[in-house]
Amino acid sequence: MDCFYCSKDERQAALMLPLAALRWSEVYLFRDQKHRGRCVVALKEHRDEIWQLSEEQRAGFFEEVSAVAEAVSRYAQADKINCAIYGDLVSHFHVHVVPKRRGELQWGGPFTDDIEKKLLTEAEYAAIGKALLAELDGICRSKAIPLLPLAGEG
Amino acid sequence: MDCFYCSKDERQAALMLPLAALRWSEVYLFRDQKHRGRCVVALKEHRDEIWQLSEEQRAGFFEEVSAVAEAVSRYAQADKINCAIYGDLVSHFHVHVVPKRRGELQWGGPFTDDIEKKLLTEAEYAAIGKALLAELDGICRSKAIPLLPLAGEG
Repeated sequence: MDCFYCSKDERQAALMLPLAALRWSEVYLFRDQKHRGRCVVALKEHRDEIWQLSEEQRAGFFEEVSAVAEAVSRYAQADKINCAIYGDLVSHFHVHVVPKRRGELQWGGPFTDDIEKKLLTEAEYAAIGKALLAELDGICRSKAIPLLPLAGEG
Repeated sequence: MDCFYCSKDERQAALMLPLAALRWSEVYLFRDQKHRGRCVVALKEHRDEIWQLSEEQRAGFFEEVSAVAEAVSRYAQADKINCAIYGDLVSHFHVHVVPKRRGELQWGGPFTDDIEKKLLTEAEYAAIGKALLAELDGICRSKAIPLLPLAGEG
């Protein structure tokens, strides 16, 4: 199957940077940071639709989505977190976790990707990633959710 | 708190029609049916963000979202189900379950509500509701998910 969440190839690298691995999911920092802190949480295994996950997998995955959403909210000092599963074109089960702030970009409407991207330098991504990971690590510790080393690290 | 998912008042009735009650959630048929079969699954209890749900509540809620998504997919013969949690303005935790069909409205992009609504007659809503409920009932039975009578019925 030609899926970039499975192959982790350059199509994925153009859109997002690996941030963390959890038991059921992988967490990515979205390169377009017009909503500062935006992440993607992708199921490790390839599934297209929510009802194709096992009960254990679904419960574990959404526990991890919850931890990431809380970490993004703390990092971004968000007033609301939007979580969306689209995948019409890239069906691998994944959630966009997008922080919104009252009165700022796209507040009160869905976030969209049809406006100009805000791309950052690698150093800026590294700084955001470090701050997000610190929040995620604290949340995962408090909930006994294992935060695993990224493949290729250490 | 002034929340129409809690008060179930005319602001909610203008947007959606009650379809079913499950253990953790209530299911509504969205009045704007430009994506035929579109529903909302709302947590019964008032919570704003995913991390405010208990572990049991979160697992149960997403099991129910999964059943509704599968029912909507079968009803709409969808190629992909989109599930989105926004709530910037109406923060009560709820998921929009939106069927997409390849090559049809908003395929490949997020569904949006900034285009003309497709409102139907009460008889048409009743027919869609009945067909959706039949799918949901079959799925709930197969997974031992209790499908409860709607308040005010029977």
